[in-house]
Amino acid sequence: MCLPLIVSLIYQEGLTNAIAFIVPIILLLAIGYLFNVKKARNTKMLAREGFVIVGLTWFIVSLFGCIPFMITNTLPNFFDAFFEMVSGFTTTGASVITDVTKVCHSILFWRSFSHWIGGMGVLVLILAIIPESKDGSAMHILRAESPGPQVGKLVSKMQVTSRILYLIYLVLTIVLILLLWLGPDKDMTLFNSLIYGLGTAGTGGFAVDPLSLELYTPYSQYVISIFMIIFGINFSMFYLILIGNLKEVFKNEEIKWYFGIIIISLIIVTSAIYPMYNDLEMSFRKALFQIASIISTTGYSSANFDTWPIITHAVIVVLMIFGACAGSTAGGTKITRVNILFKSSVNKIKNMVNPRKVEILSVDGKKVEKSVIEAVQSYFVVYIAVLIVSTLLISIDNHDLTTNFTASLSCISNIGPGLSKVGPYGSFSIFSDFSTFILTIVMIAGRLELFPILVLFSPSTWKKRI
Amino acid sequence: MCLPLIVSLIYQEGLTNAIAFIVPIILLLAIGYLFNVKKARNTKMLAREGFVIVGLTWFIVSLFGCIPFMITNTLPNFFDAFFEMVSGFTTTGASVITDVTKVCHSILFWRSFSHWIGGMGVLVLILAIIPESKDGSAMHILRAESPGPQVGKLVSKMQVTSRILYLIYLVLTIVLILLLWLGPDKDMTLFNSLIYGLGTAGTGGFAVDPLSLELYTPYSQYVISIFMIIFGINFSMFYLILIGNLKEVFKNEEIKWYFGIIIISLIIVTSAIYPMYNDLEMSFRKALFQIASIISTTGYSSANFDTWPIITHAVIVVLMIFGACAGSTAGGTKITRVNILFKSSVNKIKNMVNPRKVEILSVDGKKVEKSVIEAVQSYFVVYIAVLIVSTLLISIDNHDLTTNFTASLSCISNIGPGLSKVGPYGSFSIFSDFSTFILTIVMIAGRLELFPILVLFSPSTWKKRI
Repeated sequence: MCLPLIVSLIYQEGLTNAIAFIVPIILLLAIGYLFNVKKARNTKMLAREGFVIVGLTWFIVSLFGCIPFMITNTLPNFFDAFFEMVSGFTTTGASVITDVTKVCHSILFWRSFSHWIGGMGVLVLILAIIPESKDGSAMHILRAESPGPQVGKLVSKMQVTSRILYLIYLVLTIVLILLLWLGPDKDMTLFNSLIYGLGTAGTGGFAVDPLSLELYTPYSQYVISIFMIIFGINFSMFYLILIGNLKEVFKNEEIKWYFGIIIISLIIVTSAIYPMYNDLEMSFRKALFQIASIISTTGYSSANFDTWPIITHAVIVVLMIFGACAGSTAGGTKITRVNILFKSSVNKIKNMVNPRKVEILSVDGKKVEKSVIEAVQSYFVVYIAVLIVSTLLISIDNHDLTTNFTASLSCISNIGPGLSKVGPYGSFSIFSDFSTFILTIVMIAGRLELFPILVLFSPSTWKKRI
Repeated sequence: MCLPLIVSLIYQEGLTNAIAFIVPIILLLAIGYLFNVKKARNTKMLAREGFVIVGLTWFIVSLFGCIPFMITNTLPNFFDAFFEMVSGFTTTGASVITDVTKVCHSILFWRSFSHWIGGMGVLVLILAIIPESKDGSAMHILRAESPGPQVGKLVSKMQVTSRILYLIYLVLTIVLILLLWLGPDKDMTLFNSLIYGLGTAGTGGFAVDPLSLELYTPYSQYVISIFMIIFGINFSMFYLILIGNLKEVFKNEEIKWYFGIIIISLIIVTSAIYPMYNDLEMSFRKALFQIASIISTTGYSSANFDTWPIITHAVIVVLMIFGACAGSTAGGTKITRVNILFKSSVNKIKNMVNPRKVEILSVDGKKVEKSVIEAVQSYFVVYIAVLIVSTLLISIDNHDLTTNFTASLSCISNIGPGLSKVGPYGSFSIFSDFSTFILTIVMIAGRLELFPILVLFSPSTWKKRI
């Protein structure tokens, strides 16, 4: 929080804003000191403790993070401030602020900076739960409970790998910010470049303009489109490129699916919106930007796609469910899972035709274990279940079904905008406190791949161990 | 088709209508004779042949069935006529006829009679693929490929059981028709009683009034509500009741879930619509009717629920996905599957908390095999996938997303009405020929529990056997 404090001082925003950041800084220092002094007696860690720690951390960090919003009166309502902060850390980018032009620079910076921290946090999380990441496959992401005996020997390697991944993240972010700032776009001041650079890197989506990126030059739009796609790629791919192992990258199925889906969506959307704009370059640019934004779960927009033909909405909803690659800063179900779900369904059909032939499911040339397929299917079932329950609960507010469904979908996949009333130029401020809180939990659940939050709310977690 | 021909003669509808039914009758007799004369050389049957026969039968039967619609000029467009007929046989009840009052009696009867045949057809199908149905569990429904060595010794038992089930179906239908006809409702003529009786028994939903059952007396509405719920129950339960094994019925988890879901939905919907009607009995009756209609996938309506509060829409969409019990004439994912999906997800969470404890999933006190859980999860994944693809394809027509989604959902679950433009008083005639055809395939796919139709369209099915 020292960085937004500095921003606040640079823009001379007065005492209240400075206090807004100083209060949580002091609070956090004090609590940190207390926890350091009073050590826990029982330091044994099992899967249960791991889940609870991860789940609670996101709640607590967001609780402290939303203090500045309330002190500066940007969002005096606690539920709104909490939503906005969680939306930041989970890299969702859905906002309850109705007029973003009235918000001071330090708050805007804090909001977008939280995307970048959140994006990094996801990488940490993934690293912490992937026993082996060097093979480029991130399916192990699912076995959050698996490590056990392997952890010890992996720690040193993991720390080395994680440092390299952070470095890649940092370098890519800086390159993007420089490209935006030094580009021909007059509106891309250093501050705006920082905001959009941090938001794109974390696949967040908080903007500082009411029309998001619609009024920026094609140059900035193309740069951000390309970087949104880049930040949706599995980070271990960049690592593989760095060490010169290009063969492994080209063999990777997730990458093929990712670009395949982007190209098909581009063709459908460009041809669907061409009659609206009557300009091929513009249609292509708008299609590219929106598709990159949705599939990478960033959530910026360069057009009000809520007014586009319905076929584009259907494509957008599908992309919202898919999300980008595992091991990136993006949300959603992840392309690897979609790949596995698709292959297992095809195998099921083949198996019905020839019951005696055993079909083997392999990804990247390696056999996928039955337990992994089962885990992916369970994940998908729970994903749909959470989506349905969330839509059901927020329907109490009596907005239309498209709004409720896409708002829930947008939150579980950490995207930002949805359709209808929560479209790119809409706002989540329409929801009641109850619905806002439900959506807040859904965002955290989506970010942590569902299970940690469900474990947190499961009664059996809090039973005393026998 | 002899029955609608008789109806046509009773109402003296003229030559065209008689010909409309005589033509397909002669055609079918001729083809039947030809197939009887020319025997197949290779009579070996394997899983593949089984799936292809089941899948193709539904297409061919509907092709002949839609001839009367075209000859009588009720639906001159082939795609419309085919949709209407498939909607009948699959017990969906979605209609492309815009003004049902202008349609002649014989066609209306044929349409509703197809529901009853279709409902019976599903029972046959289920019997044919359930190796053991006496234990009241119909999960085996999924193992369409399983029989093999067991078939021989089961045939005699299966035929006895199936005759008893048919008898139950017939008796229940007759009781319902008599209750409607002999009841105090003046509008329930013998013809209307037949139409609504057959439609309810098959959980179909074709009506002969533009407002479905809204203008009928509360007596008729209650009778139909109760019978819709009854026809959504697993038929082996009635068999168990007949042989006096009530203990087994009360132990059945699917029944508990079924009535649990109905009661919870009733409480939510009644309280949500009470402010609209300001009459507790009326609110309860309308809620009961709509819930019974949707969960049993019948599709009659006694109110335009499209104008109800959004929370009721959310409940309706959930019920549309669930459907009623396996082993009934209803569609949807079936409650048993929902039960298994729910339990497997809970187990997954418990397993994360205590990785070492192995959680056993049991239904009705019996352990469920891993392969069954996997099959149910696969089914659900494919169900959602078909739903998404269908919504995507019919979005080309540019109707709103709620219409496209609920139309697809209504067809895959064989319900009838959806929301928005395909609401209870809307019509499927708004769709283009292409979308109508897609929805037709989705109806058949949903009716046959997805896999047979996917097998039919899978390239590997048509490869020559090595």
